Amino acid sequence: MMDLNRALEMDRSDPLAGTRAAFALPEGVIYLDGNSLGALPCNAAARVAEVISRQWGHDLIQSWNRHDWISMPARVGDRIARLIGADAGEVVAADSTSVNLMKLLSAALKLRPGRRTILSDNGNFPNDLYIAQGVSALLGEGHVLRIVDPDKVGDEIDGDTAILMLTEVDYRSGRRHDMRALTSRAHAAGALVIWDLCHSAGAMDVDLNAAGADMAVGCGYKYLNGGPGAPAFMFVARRLQGDLKPALSGWMGHDRPFDFDLDYRPATGVVRNLAGTPPIIGLTALDAALDAFDGVDMRDVRRKSLALGDLFIELARERLARHGLEIVTPEAHPTRGSQVSLRHPEAYAIVQALIAEGVVGDFRMPDIARFGFAPLYTSFADIWHAIDRLEAIMAAGSFREARFRKRLAVT
Amino acid sequence: MMDLNRALEMDRSDPLAGTRAAFALPEGVIYLDGNSLGALPCNAAARVAEVISRQWGHDLIQSWNRHDWISMPARVGDRIARLIGADAGEVVAADSTSVNLMKLLSAALKLRPGRRTILSDNGNFPNDLYIAQGVSALLGEGHVLRIVDPDKVGDEIDGDTAILMLTEVDYRSGRRHDMRALTSRAHAAGALVIWDLCHSAGAMDVDLNAAGADMAVGCGYKYLNGGPGAPAFMFVARRLQGDLKPALSGWMGHDRPFDFDLDYRPATGVVRNLAGTPPIIGLTALDAALDAFDGVDMRDVRRKSLALGDLFIELARERLARHGLEIVTPEAHPTRGSQVSLRHPEAYAIVQALIAEGVVGDFRMPDIARFGFAPLYTSFADIWHAIDRLEAIMAAGSFREARFRKRLAVT
Repeated sequence: MMDLNRALEMDRSDPLAGTRAAFALPEGVIYLDGNSLGALPCNAAARVAEVISRQWGHDLIQSWNRHDWISMPARVGDRIARLIGADAGEVVAADSTSVNLMKLLSAALKLRPGRRTILSDNGNFPNDLYIAQGVSALLGEGHVLRIVDPDKVGDEIDGDTAILMLTEVDYRSGRRHDMRALTSRAHAAGALVIWDLCHSAGAMDVDLNAAGADMAVGCGYKYLNGGPGAPAFMFVARRLQGDLKPALSGWMGHDRPFDFDLDYRPATGVVRNLAGTPPIIGLTALDAALDAFDGVDMRDVRRKSLALGDLFIELARERLARHGLEIVTPEAHPTRGSQVSLRHPEAYAIVQALIAEGVVGDFRMPDIARFGFAPLYTSFADIWHAIDRLEAIMAAGSFREARFRKRLAVT
Repeated sequence: MMDLNRALEMDRSDPLAGTRAAFALPEGVIYLDGNSLGALPCNAAARVAEVISRQWGHDLIQSWNRHDWISMPARVGDRIARLIGADAGEVVAADSTSVNLMKLLSAALKLRPGRRTILSDNGNFPNDLYIAQGVSALLGEGHVLRIVDPDKVGDEIDGDTAILMLTEVDYRSGRRHDMRALTSRAHAAGALVIWDLCHSAGAMDVDLNAAGADMAVGCGYKYLNGGPGAPAFMFVARRLQGDLKPALSGWMGHDRPFDFDLDYRPATGVVRNLAGTPPIIGLTALDAALDAFDGVDMRDVRRKSLALGDLFIELARERLARHGLEIVTPEAHPTRGSQVSLRHPEAYAIVQALIAEGVVGDFRMPDIARFGFAPLYTSFADIWHAIDRLEAIMAAGSFREARFRKRLAVT
């Protein structure tokens, strides 16, 4: 049976062990929920305070020029670009994932006239499906959202597929799609592809351009650690930027916003997809969070993420299987994201009991306990302790106490 | 000739004189640009620091429940509702003005099938026109944006008008529309109305429900002082909330977002118009800023705003007219917002020279110098000093120096 010492040894030889110091993790908590809300970077509070007190408070409106607030969406976007295999000038940070997805879907559908289908899968984050349903209904040209099983999605691409819209890593199971292969199949059928990187960016070596990706969206507040409801990002491959005409055509995407012309004329480049005034305070927290990635090789991030997952799976098999906790995350590395999920009919209460013991994972309907690994701050010892406490809870049956069954508003 | 003492006397008898202490105004600066970016409330930095360090940093993901982050858009919306004559449950704070306008336009057009026109005026903020152009093109059902002169807009409403989309106060001239009369005329013709309150909310006694308004959007970072790029707000009259089907249908507007159903089903109430995860840090700054309005009667705000404008106009006529600065803002109270704008061929350089002297207004293309009055922190003495310095600049001709002519990125 594996003991804590081996986990501690893995931490000692971890090339990313040093980045944990960049995060303000609370005492006594093992945090395995960075796939829902990333931990607080140590520098975020001071950077935000500086922007509020000195830039906003003292320099006021002049900060748009003096502190170059106006180009923050592009500047922060360029920093994210490196983490996801995009080039500078292909990414902007703005709005929410939902809004960015709506922008891309609505503009991209116009590039495939005559094709009616947005193809996705039932492992996609439901929000993405809702957005696609809304866009389809809005366009009213017979567009439909077709939802198939994740393992069938490649075979279902056909000549009517306008857009293949997929999330790379399934929020619930941690199953990972083959971005390169699916992009390729979609292109062969004449379709465009939008990838959602919410559960990828910051946790693995996404390589959009190597995969030939067209467009992508992703979240700033999960593995990028930008804070609750942080601005999201969007990627448009340079070759498509001129063709994509923003339907959400706001002044920040105008070629000359401060001329105040009455007619919209899109800017050159990915910035044409910006709409409203950029949220400077939120962008500042996200920008600060990206410092933790400076000098980090994303291949190291991916290697550590998989090693954390391997350890979790090994320990879960050894110590949890007998308690009825079933591993639902694929084990093979190419098909796995940066989390491991366990299935149990009492998953909700188990997660609550575990949180009471200082191990934070989360629950997803109907029966999934989810544990995310953020390679910049999750340690191998964290994994060992998490499994150790989970085993104790299962053995004692303490999760059956009534207090762990009361449903919270957000689960 | 009027002297400073009269302005100081007006400040002494100002019932809102006390609220200025709630703002951290920089020493030696007279700030008349709160219609572009509101001043920093004294409590904002500490409130944001608390949310970052304790809520995000310590309580992490549990903050969605423990600190009720999840209902912030509705809670902050309810606080804004009182300032604009709406009821609780009719306003949410979310996204940008652009995105909220896109949401309302796209959903509202579906309520007027067969009608093709979005009617607006050439005094509207160009961004609103861009958004309407984008939505019209996206729907592709022959929708058109029709732009007429502001004083003709009432007469141009007809049986083909689906939506009348107007900004109450013209960002450039400060001219104010008659919300009640125009809403009434639109309703008589069977049209819906969307009001943009960017230059109204927080500076006057907007009364949406008394005017019979249908929908409205507005900005969090001007007279509401929510910080650069603060979340915006949207209003939907209760009677319309059930009919309006969100086209930007995101999970935060879902009836049961944490059930993770594959199908979108809109929530009851104005919250159905929410889309992505709420920006908690930005909402916190906006929420803190709203404290300054606690206990404030918006009729006092309007009275003071008009008195500030009256003083500005009186002094401008007395001391600036001879220097070729023409008042373009309507003088009659019902037709004036909370700013006064002056026209001069050298307006850009004049504004830059004035900023160098510590008086911050702003420039708007092609020849407008704009001065906004934020009744919660603008004093009558501010107005006197602003005019005094402006007269000195005009008399000396110092604005003709080359350094004041260099165009900045944001003007």
